Amino acid sequence: MTGQEIKEQDLQYNLHSWSKQGNLNPIPVEKSDGIYFWDYAGKRYADMSSQLVNLNLGHGNRQIVEAIKQQADQFCFMGPGYAVESRSRLAKMVIDLLPDNMGKVFFTNAGADANENAIKMARMFTGRNKIFSRYRSYHGSTFGAGNLTGEPRRYPLEPGIPGFVKFFDPYIYREPIEFAGEEAATAFYIAKLREQVHYEGPDNIAAIVLETVTGSNGVIIPPKGYLKGVRKICDDYGIMMICDEVMAGFGRTGKMFAFEHFDVKPDIVTFAKGITCGYVPLGGVAVAKKIAAYFDDHTLLCGLTYSAHPLACAAGVATLNYYKEAHILEQVEKTGKVLGQILEEIKTRHACVGDVRYIGLFSAVELVKDKTTKEPLVAYGQDPQGVMSGIIKQLTAKGFVTYSHENMILVAPPLIITEAQLREMMAILDEVLTDMDQVITTRKTA
Amino acid sequence: MTGQEIKEQDLQYNLHSWSKQGNLNPIPVEKSDGIYFWDYAGKRYADMSSQLVNLNLGHGNRQIVEAIKQQADQFCFMGPGYAVESRSRLAKMVIDLLPDNMGKVFFTNAGADANENAIKMARMFTGRNKIFSRYRSYHGSTFGAGNLTGEPRRYPLEPGIPGFVKFFDPYIYREPIEFAGEEAATAFYIAKLREQVHYEGPDNIAAIVLETVTGSNGVIIPPKGYLKGVRKICDDYGIMMICDEVMAGFGRTGKMFAFEHFDVKPDIVTFAKGITCGYVPLGGVAVAKKIAAYFDDHTLLCGLTYSAHPLACAAGVATLNYYKEAHILEQVEKTGKVLGQILEEIKTRHACVGDVRYIGLFSAVELVKDKTTKEPLVAYGQDPQGVMSGIIKQLTAKGFVTYSHENMILVAPPLIITEAQLREMMAILDEVLTDMDQVITTRKTA
Repeated sequence: MTGQEIKEQDLQYNLHSWSKQGNLNPIPVEKSDGIYFWDYAGKRYADMSSQLVNLNLGHGNRQIVEAIKQQADQFCFMGPGYAVESRSRLAKMVIDLLPDNMGKVFFTNAGADANENAIKMARMFTGRNKIFSRYRSYHGSTFGAGNLTGEPRRYPLEPGIPGFVKFFDPYIYREPIEFAGEEAATAFYIAKLREQVHYEGPDNIAAIVLETVTGSNGVIIPPKGYLKGVRKICDDYGIMMICDEVMAGFGRTGKMFAFEHFDVKPDIVTFAKGITCGYVPLGGVAVAKKIAAYFDDHTLLCGLTYSAHPLACAAGVATLNYYKEAHILEQVEKTGKVLGQILEEIKTRHACVGDVRYIGLFSAVELVKDKTTKEPLVAYGQDPQGVMSGIIKQLTAKGFVTYSHENMILVAPPLIITEAQLREMMAILDEVLTDMDQVITTRKTA
Repeated sequence: MTGQEIKEQDLQYNLHSWSKQGNLNPIPVEKSDGIYFWDYAGKRYADMSSQLVNLNLGHGNRQIVEAIKQQADQFCFMGPGYAVESRSRLAKMVIDLLPDNMGKVFFTNAGADANENAIKMARMFTGRNKIFSRYRSYHGSTFGAGNLTGEPRRYPLEPGIPGFVKFFDPYIYREPIEFAGEEAATAFYIAKLREQVHYEGPDNIAAIVLETVTGSNGVIIPPKGYLKGVRKICDDYGIMMICDEVMAGFGRTGKMFAFEHFDVKPDIVTFAKGITCGYVPLGGVAVAKKIAAYFDDHTLLCGLTYSAHPLACAAGVATLNYYKEAHILEQVEKTGKVLGQILEEIKTRHACVGDVRYIGLFSAVELVKDKTTKEPLVAYGQDPQGVMSGIIKQLTAKGFVTYSHENMILVAPPLIITEAQLREMMAILDEVLTDMDQVITTRKTA
């Protein structure tokens, strides 16, 4: 089929996520390699969001592809009840990467059902019902994961599930009070959380669920001591601490798991995306030894046909091996520093940039109309003029592909990006932001 | 790794679905082909449940494997926003297989999230909240799909989601009244459903969700006119009729979709399993043209990273081609008749068989202590002696692999099974049931 035919047929028969279907213009993709992909006209795009922050090792990684082909030749599928080599290998590899308190893995298809099963397990283990999660979080869009989600993508799932409680995250840049420093901010947020726990009844709370680093809502990084504070609350009241590492895990932040930056051990870790880079869909829930032991003689009331899919597990084994053999974490530490420097320069130089946040190769640029008032470039949930989509279109035209969320642009390239590639691409972002500076400056003087 | 090592590592690191982890004994699988698979000791097993009723084309289908390998060489993944050849092709193929009222497909990872998204779309399209589904159904175990589910696998998700309402299915064999015939039964069930719709408020009801043929709860086949009656209620009140074809679809019943047996057109069809036979995880929601058109200018508030995964879609294209080229439907029509005859003989011959139900190669044998009283071999939700698992173990030892649910044994072999293979295997079931006849007869006389 030609690119044009593929696109037309796509628009005629496929429903696309989070969109009005009437005004879509999908790029037909012919091939991809490393940080790049190409359309059928031969135009090259740099994938500066790693697709949906899942292609940590970029496109066309031969080791993963060969592992998939080899497993496909042995067999693609055996049900979750059987022992299968790729399944056994991957479970051990995941546990070996995690802190020493972790015991077993329950594999799922992706991140949403990983979170679904994590909260089920926390409820079963604790015998408690309530689940805490945060505003400005995204945990998936199925009913359970979507009710954890703390932003508008949750609305179609409401009225919500009884017992799901939201609290505020440490979004310091937009907090309507000013803190003396990170520690002061942490003290405030942890005190508020503890207060809310008291008012919901600590004995009713099964779990506190958080993205270790908030992802699609703008790469919001916990202040110093924050996660330890959450851990302390969980310890004080027998609440399970569930870290959602779906986006932040597997090297994205420069550590294998983002919580390693903050010196805490969760009780449950959910993951997806980077475990296979999405080459085959896979997600999972890793649980502490104490939870695993509980299910020795209590029925685990979780299940899905494709739990620990052999083909996905084979892709996972190859992916985890590649992170290690190619020294990806060391590479992210280096390129992440470069990214941070560039972003700080961008913040200094551009009138339209209010804040930049970054950890490893996980970053967001928050756009404002005015640096002093911090007024967002587009109001929350509103962009009737298509200002943000206009920026994304401009970037795409220049071969820099990513996506935006509210007034923020995500920058999260494949972890294999070189410094030269990164500098080349960030120069494009710089150009587009210069245009936006002029727009807001012109408006002000007009 | 050796089979023993694989098994030990599996038990040490993997959590298994719907089980106490302490007493598992998973078979380590080395290879598979057609209706068979082999453990590392060389023992052969006939897969008489097609794993979890997903391997419709059996193990090791080369056309699907080659399609996966070819797609893996082009690329494994592009996000759902892009136009991709396998994605465009598969969506058109699915719509072409469906009735002429159907318009577009939203692909998911599997059956549970297909159902999750179906109910979201029905709510958005109708602007209504309530969702009807049936007792003795299974639609998945995530919060949304699990709240549709009408059996104990739902319990860990309770207290349930507001607006989910259950009604009774036409389980004629165990209904505490006797009907003059199928039509009389249908009249009763449809009248009761209409009454319940009235009492819940027709204008509040977004959808009625049903497995076209109830699957894991015992292959319960709708009586004549039943689905047309449901369709009529939906038409009368603007309710979306959602047929869950996750297990029954793609040739399992002898038609491409099970609802074709009953001369109805659903508004929404969910599918998974047979679309790729599970070679790569894939599910989906097909919606009527009217629903697709609604989302032209209303945002589809659904999304997942792996929607319409290119590798899965490539597997799907090959799978659908194979059904056609190998004349699978015609084959199922023939072998399905043989299966039906054998099951009727089994019912006549065995004291422990209360009922057999079959359609195509989708069947269940319902076991009783007494044919006259219909007392189930094990009470609902209770089998402290492990009677049913004992039967499954006996079958497995003889190389016949399937699973049980309550007092029922599922028989749903790959659709490629030959008549000779079917007769050979059903003779094994016959042997094991003969043993059970003796057990219940001995008990009675004792």
